[in-house]
Amino acid sequence: MSELRVFAVTGVGAIVDGDDIATIFYDALIAQGESLRDGDVVAVTSKIVAKAEGRVVAFDGSEGGKIALIEQESRRILRRRGGLRLTETHHGFICANAGIDLSNTDDNTAVLLPIDPDRSARRFRGDLMRRSGRDVAVIITDTFGRVWRQGVTDVAIGVAGLVPVLDLRGTTDANGRVLEATEVAVVDEIAATADLVLGKASNNPFAVIRGLRPEFFGEGSIRENLVRRAHDDLFR
Amino acid sequence: MSELRVFAVTGVGAIVDGDDIATIFYDALIAQGESLRDGDVVAVTSKIVAKAEGRVVAFDGSEGGKIALIEQESRRILRRRGGLRLTETHHGFICANAGIDLSNTDDNTAVLLPIDPDRSARRFRGDLMRRSGRDVAVIITDTFGRVWRQGVTDVAIGVAGLVPVLDLRGTTDANGRVLEATEVAVVDEIAATADLVLGKASNNPFAVIRGLRPEFFGEGSIRENLVRRAHDDLFR
Repeated sequence: MSELRVFAVTGVGAIVDGDDIATIFYDALIAQGESLRDGDVVAVTSKIVAKAEGRVVAFDGSEGGKIALIEQESRRILRRRGGLRLTETHHGFICANAGIDLSNTDDNTAVLLPIDPDRSARRFRGDLMRRSGRDVAVIITDTFGRVWRQGVTDVAIGVAGLVPVLDLRGTTDANGRVLEATEVAVVDEIAATADLVLGKASNNPFAVIRGLRPEFFGEGSIRENLVRRAHDDLFR
Repeated sequence: MSELRVFAVTGVGAIVDGDDIATIFYDALIAQGESLRDGDVVAVTSKIVAKAEGRVVAFDGSEGGKIALIEQESRRILRRRGGLRLTETHHGFICANAGIDLSNTDDNTAVLLPIDPDRSARRFRGDLMRRSGRDVAVIITDTFGRVWRQGVTDVAIGVAGLVPVLDLRGTTDANGRVLEATEVAVVDEIAATADLVLGKASNNPFAVIRGLRPEFFGEGSIRENLVRRAHDDLFR
């Protein structure tokens, strides 16, 4: 039977430029009486990764300063409404305000997205595997809106050790019929799962997801496999 | 510490018009040595609910028959590409091909979406609570694409006993700072979580999610609280 266990790792303090987040995570995990196992997925919020990578900039809180930051971090502005900009970031992500965290940060600063979240995930994974001796995978999560539905959900913006989109084309269900919905963005489903135990109001940046099926593990990149090309979508 | 346990309920056979899915679910749950607890969420795929409600129609497999079905189930067609129609259903859902299951069904039939998935969820919840004596919540899940990202994920199209969008506006994080991403579509995150243990290639239509925080529980409706109004989105 397929069964997951999902838990937050607590007791992690403020993260600053240069911090070794793998060691910080692992020490906190051990301190709460847990450990890593082969096949675990560790989810970390992009804000923590960005802070450890020094992606924190001065921000005076003004509307002009905000727009300037958003434009600097964007390849393109798709839509404007009030203070909201729907942007395409330099990574190719379509999200509000270039994914910049303008409110939930230290005074007079803003936190940008990591420059290359897939690379950040690979580094975090490598550090974790050396530290723990276990074969684990990693996702870096962020909070994005959706075009047609109210509310935000967490998605994966960086990945290491997982197949971002599980391709079931040509496979059949238990009755031998060919499946219709066949490319499943499992890393985004894992990010959403992690958010359920983290919660925006907590300061817990790390979650562990245990029990995912072996077919989820492999190689891939969010930018290569999950970001839809402009000529593929129906709205650009 | 926030911790989830998520598991599939197995051994459920084919569902037909008039089936009592609460009893079918509950018997299968007990048969695998589990039970329900107060605060559990039961996720069920929309296809099973639709079959039990008799939402199965003749379908000859032709392209013309497919388009006719899609148009019958749609309020509006937003985009056309090849055999794909991006539709607004009579419920207000924006999804591919009016959410009709055209392939993964019995021969020469198609499965439509439930007529009122929120009502279906309320009925399933009531039946489950009578059957189990436990205070549980319910989501009905379906598989939708996204505009900007490759791959599909599961979302909630019906709900009972949960707050669809958790409103954190005005709340602060552990450092006393006001949160930015403040309306979280938790029911869609729960649907995504359920899909990780179900899997499209299995025939398991039911999952149990245990351990969600008390703030997730309450009243609400997908159609009222989660479907974005046309004048609110940036692309209609």
